[in-house]
Amino acid sequence: MRISSLSEKEFLEKVFAARQFSKSDGALLADTLVDADLRGISSHGIQRLAWYTSMIKEHIIEPQNKLKVIKETPTSLLIDANKNMGQIATAFAEKQLIKKTQKLGLSVAVIRNSNHFGTAGYYARMAAKQGLIGIALTNTRPLVVPTNATEAFLGSNAFAFTFPAEPHPFVFDGATSIVSSGKIQVLAKNNQPIPGDWAVDDHRRVMHDAQKVEDNLAKVAFTEKQPGGGVLTLGGLLQSNSNYKGFGNSLVVELLTGILAQGSISADTNKPGHHDFSQFLLTINPELFGNLDDLKKSAEEMFDRLRHLKHLPGTEIMIPGDREYRRYAENLKQGVVIDDKTAAELKTIGEELAIPVPEAI
Amino acid sequence: MRISSLSEKEFLEKVFAARQFSKSDGALLADTLVDADLRGISSHGIQRLAWYTSMIKEHIIEPQNKLKVIKETPTSLLIDANKNMGQIATAFAEKQLIKKTQKLGLSVAVIRNSNHFGTAGYYARMAAKQGLIGIALTNTRPLVVPTNATEAFLGSNAFAFTFPAEPHPFVFDGATSIVSSGKIQVLAKNNQPIPGDWAVDDHRRVMHDAQKVEDNLAKVAFTEKQPGGGVLTLGGLLQSNSNYKGFGNSLVVELLTGILAQGSISADTNKPGHHDFSQFLLTINPELFGNLDDLKKSAEEMFDRLRHLKHLPGTEIMIPGDREYRRYAENLKQGVVIDDKTAAELKTIGEELAIPVPEAI
Repeated sequence: MRISSLSEKEFLEKVFAARQFSKSDGALLADTLVDADLRGISSHGIQRLAWYTSMIKEHIIEPQNKLKVIKETPTSLLIDANKNMGQIATAFAEKQLIKKTQKLGLSVAVIRNSNHFGTAGYYARMAAKQGLIGIALTNTRPLVVPTNATEAFLGSNAFAFTFPAEPHPFVFDGATSIVSSGKIQVLAKNNQPIPGDWAVDDHRRVMHDAQKVEDNLAKVAFTEKQPGGGVLTLGGLLQSNSNYKGFGNSLVVELLTGILAQGSISADTNKPGHHDFSQFLLTINPELFGNLDDLKKSAEEMFDRLRHLKHLPGTEIMIPGDREYRRYAENLKQGVVIDDKTAAELKTIGEELAIPVPEAI
Repeated sequence: MRISSLSEKEFLEKVFAARQFSKSDGALLADTLVDADLRGISSHGIQRLAWYTSMIKEHIIEPQNKLKVIKETPTSLLIDANKNMGQIATAFAEKQLIKKTQKLGLSVAVIRNSNHFGTAGYYARMAAKQGLIGIALTNTRPLVVPTNATEAFLGSNAFAFTFPAEPHPFVFDGATSIVSSGKIQVLAKNNQPIPGDWAVDDHRRVMHDAQKVEDNLAKVAFTEKQPGGGVLTLGGLLQSNSNYKGFGNSLVVELLTGILAQGSISADTNKPGHHDFSQFLLTINPELFGNLDDLKKSAEEMFDRLRHLKHLPGTEIMIPGDREYRRYAENLKQGVVIDDKTAAELKTIGEELAIPVPEAI
């Protein structure tokens, strides 16, 4: 079914208020989920609400906790998210970085003791809206199997990068692994096979049954006893296809998040009642180097040349961001898609809190 | 054959002096090539000398030109390399960034009107030696075919990232594409097939004949008339294996180099007599966030846990940097490997300049 993004936002704000988030925190959380659904990134939209709710009940998320600024310099911020949602600490940090970067040209923040923060792109886009280059990283629960390994250790470790441009910024936003676990969840939900070499068992044999992979990942990511197997790095199964480069990219994120923030690395976020994700933000003012309008124009010209390269019949060449802004415009009109399982979860959540759920349009 | 790295360095310094580089510039150029050979990255070692020589003769490289600092702030540098080698401008910029970062916590430089700069890792390692996080990027000649495209546009676009650690820093250093063109050159030289899905023809059909690929890439990278085909992005042939993520990574490098430096993007570096590469450097002081020794220790513990994960029999899990530091120690003792074709090229260069070539050991 589809619901209007407006009704989705109202519902979410009421739920978050009932769960003791402050009004402004609840509005932010709602906005990040609605924004993801509008962009067609449903893996990071309202379908996360049941998970967020269970984490609140387990005190993995503490909605009333205030973040703490541990250390601040004119170019940096170290923040303790204090077990509250990652969105709250990260949006706060991004706003501070934008101010710092407008003064000194670039700045960096790391956040520890945090939780899921929605899409990494949300924060990197905040920078792009101010004419800045934005980078946002997070580690995650352990899911990803390094080159040659037969057990998971790395997170799917999101990387978002934005560069100002019109009609929309360049927005590269996704897991550094070959896919995020959300993509596998969606296939499992719909009884579809995995179309590529995404996941392996405890002997590094490729698995295509999405439900079996999903069942295994639930153990891999959420229990301390590792059954083996997991998601592959970008580059896939084989060292001959340079899968160690995907491994390297994932490790860069581990170093800049869990290590630099002195929080947990992904491998240590699978303890019961424990989350402790870490995030990393960097913003750069492109006007350190040139006029913003000129730089945007150069980028847009490159994107247009790319879109018009010779390509396979029946395909198109899309620039990172093209798809999500196209879907944003469509879903704003048509409403956002809610799958049946999520609809049922929302019904349960609404009944528990006596909040009416959004109606299908 | 093998030659001692000392004799390699002496030979290179004499050649660069004869080609009108200043003594310090020549010593730097020699050091970057010897360093690559010692690390087993022979694609970026002395085998580049014949190419460098031909570019000097064609005035693509101007050895006596001085770099120009176009714009400087307490946290940034914009440099015009003035058609001299990339090594010179980049090493200069990295030294300045180290000072700036020691003061303000992080800093960034972009360089335009540059040439090949050796390995990206060389500069990122300069930062790591000072206890800093280092990032170095370069664009290159166009070689890489975007997702769905049948012609090349992107460079192989190197990305290096270092993080301080013992006994050696974390050093992730390589092309953002599935492989660098140098890897294909080495296979072609040795009459070996390409072992993975690295390169395609003008219909995106995978090619495994290294010599045929190499012949095609010579046209793709060095002529304005594009025959189609090229090297694949990380992720390989198929969209179902997320090759658009490799495309995104490559585009991030294009934006931070050619676009941000207002130089040429990779696609425009294939004009005769024209190079105009751009480079990007970023350094961050990890002590913005914690004690350096503690951070190093956390990183080292993570690396050790990774090395000891369960893995396929007969393989090992290596951390980025492990292989190159191992080879460095070996080659320092045994000498660096020079292939027959390169040995012949060195002989010609030595004869032309009346400089004795290093003898085999």
